[in-house]
Amino acid sequence: MSHHALLRELQLKNSSKIILLVADGLGGLPLAPGGKTELEIARTPNLDSLAAQGTLGLSTPVLPGITPGSGPGHLGLFGYDPLEFRIGRGVLEALGIDFDLGPDDVAIRGNFCTLDAEGRITDRRAGRIASEIGKTLCEKLDKIKIPGVEVFVRPVKEYRLVVVFRAPGLGGAVHDTDPQKTGVPPLDPQGRDAASQKTAEIARAFLAQAREVLKNDAPANFFTMRGIDKRPSIPTFEEIYGLKAGAIAVYPMYRGLARLVSMNVLDAGLTLDDQCARLEQSWNDFDFFFMHYKYTDSTGEDGNFAAKVERIEQLDAVLPRIMALRPDVLVVTGDHSTPSKMKSHSWHPVPVLMHGNLCRPDACTSFGEAQCLQGGLGQFPAKYLMTLAMAHAGRLEKYGA
Amino acid sequence: MSHHALLRELQLKNSSKIILLVADGLGGLPLAPGGKTELEIARTPNLDSLAAQGTLGLSTPVLPGITPGSGPGHLGLFGYDPLEFRIGRGVLEALGIDFDLGPDDVAIRGNFCTLDAEGRITDRRAGRIASEIGKTLCEKLDKIKIPGVEVFVRPVKEYRLVVVFRAPGLGGAVHDTDPQKTGVPPLDPQGRDAASQKTAEIARAFLAQAREVLKNDAPANFFTMRGIDKRPSIPTFEEIYGLKAGAIAVYPMYRGLARLVSMNVLDAGLTLDDQCARLEQSWNDFDFFFMHYKYTDSTGEDGNFAAKVERIEQLDAVLPRIMALRPDVLVVTGDHSTPSKMKSHSWHPVPVLMHGNLCRPDACTSFGEAQCLQGGLGQFPAKYLMTLAMAHAGRLEKYGA
Repeated sequence: MSHHALLRELQLKNSSKIILLVADGLGGLPLAPGGKTELEIARTPNLDSLAAQGTLGLSTPVLPGITPGSGPGHLGLFGYDPLEFRIGRGVLEALGIDFDLGPDDVAIRGNFCTLDAEGRITDRRAGRIASEIGKTLCEKLDKIKIPGVEVFVRPVKEYRLVVVFRAPGLGGAVHDTDPQKTGVPPLDPQGRDAASQKTAEIARAFLAQAREVLKNDAPANFFTMRGIDKRPSIPTFEEIYGLKAGAIAVYPMYRGLARLVSMNVLDAGLTLDDQCARLEQSWNDFDFFFMHYKYTDSTGEDGNFAAKVERIEQLDAVLPRIMALRPDVLVVTGDHSTPSKMKSHSWHPVPVLMHGNLCRPDACTSFGEAQCLQGGLGQFPAKYLMTLAMAHAGRLEKYGA
Repeated sequence: MSHHALLRELQLKNSSKIILLVADGLGGLPLAPGGKTELEIARTPNLDSLAAQGTLGLSTPVLPGITPGSGPGHLGLFGYDPLEFRIGRGVLEALGIDFDLGPDDVAIRGNFCTLDAEGRITDRRAGRIASEIGKTLCEKLDKIKIPGVEVFVRPVKEYRLVVVFRAPGLGGAVHDTDPQKTGVPPLDPQGRDAASQKTAEIARAFLAQAREVLKNDAPANFFTMRGIDKRPSIPTFEEIYGLKAGAIAVYPMYRGLARLVSMNVLDAGLTLDDQCARLEQSWNDFDFFFMHYKYTDSTGEDGNFAAKVERIEQLDAVLPRIMALRPDVLVVTGDHSTPSKMKSHSWHPVPVLMHGNLCRPDACTSFGEAQCLQGGLGQFPAKYLMTLAMAHAGRLEKYGA
């Protein structure tokens, strides 16, 4: 029996409120032997006080040693096994520009490219055209009509675009048309099954028109298709947990991931203060809030240890405002580690802070990786974090008698 | 999705070097309450220094409470689920005498036995004949010809032998002919499927000739067949990890286990110094080295606590020579525990030391079971050890975006 089946069976309704506060890429590494991590160095009096009252632990996003992207990292936090539910690149790209993908949609990541007179690719990124040019070209492509199919073409950034085909019965298993090298023509779209052959035919018809539309737009006189996929069929957050969920995320990617599990995506504004204001205004409308904070990851990716420390301290500063709402359960964690030392996501286990009045105390007195290693939640797969939050909120019945 | 499928997808090539140093049966127990284990008592300044810099943990070879043999223990370390990949006794016996089993081979463990005039077994071990006699009889049996089949007969020790039938399409599911008691004749070989019926026919033909060949060799005037099996179909180490692997093991069994996953088996000599010399000489030829040290297990099996301590100290003494090669990742661990107190393998979790410059520090300052329990790797299934080693070597891409 899967843990989802179990949760569907055991979920209880009550008036409790749960907040999942995700500091993206929270976990870190010391810069030098004998040193401390970003989280350990940051002055976080509010998180430390919650850590002392609550229970700490470390979560493994996918499997030991596996570094997750943002998609698998968040699916894990939301309680979905990231190895069971996979998100295609095209889908993630569409989510990342706030495109609301439906169940009939096939999403495609596009790259504008340059073709020579013989139709061979000479530049796979079309000279990295400016975003404004990409936007204008997408507007032209967006006017292409294919009978029986709704077509959406949206710019992402520079030479990158998203194409969505919407029609019932389309398959998502279509090979890339990007040959991954220059000097050869783009590949013909090929479906791996009957439903995907239908998608491939649509793609072929669309590309034929696109070639005509773009013919005078060199260096961006064509585009390749990659990561073609449908959004995975995912049971909704509300089905599994019985929670009415609101997502408060500034960046489109994380709004998209919340939408993927059918959370209600709220207007988050731009700052932590905006997010807190939204939380306060929506407090009576939802049982569960997912609040996403990006800058612990972006500073880590930049390799800026001091900036990551500062971003953690900024997050700590809004905790009193959040706690003033008196959530029954607060979870503070990350979707993965992003050590400044590595300038990238990593596989290292992720600090978890669980706060609520049913927490069993451990000996931890501050929020940091070394303390979390001694924490009462131990080391556990991230996909069980929501189960633990539900339990602490009194929202799960006993299993069996 | 299995972790092997994931690793095939995520493996990256770089110039890093990984060493897996296996001290067989490393884990132990104190002899008396309040005491320390063999590893904790041993003076291991080099391992302790690596432990202070790296990350410790404990691995579970199969499942909590399950004691592994050498086969499952090593498969786990190599990253293969020991419950998914099972090695028959005949295969293990063949590996143990350095017989290079191919995919068309059926391996059989044989016991010389004594038959009376009516063909009933009177001694299932043929009076435990001397190894020299066993060797001579095997040479006679090795001359038997079966049309369309290559036959190999090799002595193991005393009354034990190995028989291998090599021919395409032979099945390995054949019942033992050893009736497990005296006073009755050996059983007729019976296959459990069509391909194995073919093997059973060959075995029958071979046994008929063997009865004739051995008729004047009482007490060893026949032999029984046990643990009949083919080598399991195992994806190669290089397929899964993209690592070119060299195995440096003195004992045939461990060379055989390395061969089972298609590592390159190198000439290891007889001593740790020989093994280190081989490691140095082969340093540029491989990405990964499996180095096996037997005596921590054999002293444990002997129940000789002091000797096991001494063997651990001897291993510690060669660490500077190994570290002089500056491996990117060094893992020191065992394939299972062999507490001297128990004179046998045990189920107790196995100490793990991971060393490399991306290790997240823990509070551990020496290498021992109690310290490992506080280690940053936590307690984890042994089959994920290689995934962790790959991650620390920068040899895995991010999963998803």
